[in-house]
Amino acid sequence: MKKIEGGVTAAKGFEASSCEANIKYKDRTDMAMVFCKEPCVCAGTFTSNVVKAACVMWDKEIVESGRAMHGVVINSGIANACTGKEGYDACEATAKAAEKMLNVPFNSVAVASTGVIGMQLPVEKLTAGVEKMSKSLDASMEAGTAASKAIMTTDTVNKEIAVNFEIGGKTVTLGGMSKGSGMIHPNMCTMLGFLTTDLSIEKKLLQEALSEVVVDTFNMISVDGDTSTNDTLLILANGLAGNETIKEKNEDFETFKEALFEVCRFLARKMASDGEGATKLFTAHVLHAKSKEDARILARSVISSSLSKAAIYGCDANFGRFLCAMGYSGVSFDQADVELYFESAAGECKVFEYGVPLVFDEELATKIMSEEEVIIRIDMHEGEEEATAWGCDLTYDYVKINADYRS
Amino acid sequence: MKKIEGGVTAAKGFEASSCEANIKYKDRTDMAMVFCKEPCVCAGTFTSNVVKAACVMWDKEIVESGRAMHGVVINSGIANACTGKEGYDACEATAKAAEKMLNVPFNSVAVASTGVIGMQLPVEKLTAGVEKMSKSLDASMEAGTAASKAIMTTDTVNKEIAVNFEIGGKTVTLGGMSKGSGMIHPNMCTMLGFLTTDLSIEKKLLQEALSEVVVDTFNMISVDGDTSTNDTLLILANGLAGNETIKEKNEDFETFKEALFEVCRFLARKMASDGEGATKLFTAHVLHAKSKEDARILARSVISSSLSKAAIYGCDANFGRFLCAMGYSGVSFDQADVELYFESAAGECKVFEYGVPLVFDEELATKIMSEEEVIIRIDMHEGEEEATAWGCDLTYDYVKINADYRS
Repeated sequence: MKKIEGGVTAAKGFEASSCEANIKYKDRTDMAMVFCKEPCVCAGTFTSNVVKAACVMWDKEIVESGRAMHGVVINSGIANACTGKEGYDACEATAKAAEKMLNVPFNSVAVASTGVIGMQLPVEKLTAGVEKMSKSLDASMEAGTAASKAIMTTDTVNKEIAVNFEIGGKTVTLGGMSKGSGMIHPNMCTMLGFLTTDLSIEKKLLQEALSEVVVDTFNMISVDGDTSTNDTLLILANGLAGNETIKEKNEDFETFKEALFEVCRFLARKMASDGEGATKLFTAHVLHAKSKEDARILARSVISSSLSKAAIYGCDANFGRFLCAMGYSGVSFDQADVELYFESAAGECKVFEYGVPLVFDEELATKIMSEEEVIIRIDMHEGEEEATAWGCDLTYDYVKINADYRS
Repeated sequence: MKKIEGGVTAAKGFEASSCEANIKYKDRTDMAMVFCKEPCVCAGTFTSNVVKAACVMWDKEIVESGRAMHGVVINSGIANACTGKEGYDACEATAKAAEKMLNVPFNSVAVASTGVIGMQLPVEKLTAGVEKMSKSLDASMEAGTAASKAIMTTDTVNKEIAVNFEIGGKTVTLGGMSKGSGMIHPNMCTMLGFLTTDLSIEKKLLQEALSEVVVDTFNMISVDGDTSTNDTLLILANGLAGNETIKEKNEDFETFKEALFEVCRFLARKMASDGEGATKLFTAHVLHAKSKEDARILARSVISSSLSKAAIYGCDANFGRFLCAMGYSGVSFDQADVELYFESAAGECKVFEYGVPLVFDEELATKIMSEEEVIIRIDMHEGEEEATAWGCDLTYDYVKINADYRS
């Protein structure tokens, strides 16, 4: 597998475009479109929040229908959540406008939204945007990057990646983009993520690969513990790479899953480190847990704790807060088995050993915690399983961004 | 029932004292003692965090033993959590020193600590403090207030209350104090709370009353979602009021439980409104839920959400965040049944009606949200149960306080 330049337009047959639709933001792009003329198989994972945005309900329906898909239309600024029937009608109008412009079948275009909850979308601006974007679709790397920028809200960097890998002698490309900075605590998938590939694969296996990979990537990040109403991750596969279609869980399937894991892991880490107000990536690595699920729960609990996140911001090796967060996670363990280390590019420092606090070099600990990525390594000494979760620090800017987000 | 002045020394037979033991803080009192010469029946509830502080393990043991109790020794500054055998030995040394000085039986004194996790307590300073406090015990109101101040950490106000009520023609007094400002998301009880009463009641019924009342008071508050390692709530009852001992769930039991509920509710609300960095009390009132447990979970989820808390700080009626927090709480419901209102001393404003966002007076909403207590009323229209939870807003100061708490 090789990382290459680009994002959603890297794989053969995919085009993208974006525009200024003035939905809520002014003087910036706020709509994006990803399109493929060929019919694609599609898989998706969606928020587990029972308050689902209208677009999530729309997408779930068409992904589950099993119909061939041709693309997705995305807007930033308004989330189209908690908007009742009027919100659902806006999804339908957007998708229909795209299907008509692009001359593709009924219900073959997904829609996604991100932004303020509880506001109605201006439908005319949406359909005007669709019309504009349908005429400017482009397979260039630049068009993909522009699309990834158009879907940002409080994000400070755009998030995209593409990779190549070989399946049966054919070069397959997988690319993607995502956005997400606040209300990030995905459960089944993340805020918004769109992946495209020219791989040939059956729909059922595409969904299985995506569902498996999400568990240890997007579902292992948190910015603020708030699981969004809009979490949506979609993957479109058009088969243009010409590989023999993957119809079973063979070696090809594993090769693809590995590439998919790396792409999702890259985008998930990128979202965590760009969490609202964040100054650093905060990683928890749990080793030797009794079960994989225990390891995941412990790692997520640590990176989700407000007090741990504030300590990471302050470069304060206040390790008791990390143990406290493990303790209320719901996993049962004995603190007398536990060892804790802080580590980063600046070195490593052991702070807790088998239930006993160590006297450690505070200066070294502060230096370690001042790096861009700070890792807390947690050795449970109870079994063979491990997991990693990614979050960010809690800063003044998180509060500032969220105290008056709507204005 | 009548609210009276005072706290832990209000009930007959209880004395208190405090001192500067210089455990971690300088130039302020940091140890407190509550004592009763008569043997007391005792009940307690403790943190559900599996990483329990040494003092929690000590207290659980003696509360469960059923022995008569005589008092409690408390320190602030160091929490004595994650401290292994050395930490447990410190509890034993403290309790033994008090038992010797006060001439009461072995294992009849509880200990409690609050402060930094992962640091060892200086045992000699503790026992010196115990000696000093044993000689200055006093039944005055002032001594009780001084004790409630000595156990504060990042608290900005001390928290105490006392009430009178009648049982079988006798006047019974119940008083208490608590502390807690950060790492507040109690589960089984709260940070530290100590209640004293001259009621005569059997131990089993005292425990039942306490356990029942805690569910809708201390367990319904949250400052930051972090369930502490040290949560401890103890009640001592010495029988000096002279009422006929309560031995069954009769009318007297209900009268006592009502008083206990009001005392716990008062202290719990006080803790929530004094949450670290808080500028206001943030109350969620869920009505017409399918079950009591659903109502509790929904109310707690809303007041625990970082995004909702930041909106409360910014006086921003961004109601979608509240719906979002309900949606990921684990309770299943249909947003089309829900109505939402913001209310406070400044009025009331409906913002969401049966699944549809309303156009509301933003100016009025901001005025409502600028008050000292802001309530979000959530009508589920699904059943007959209700619950209330109390939290606070998320502010710059929360981050400031916690970015470098140890120094």
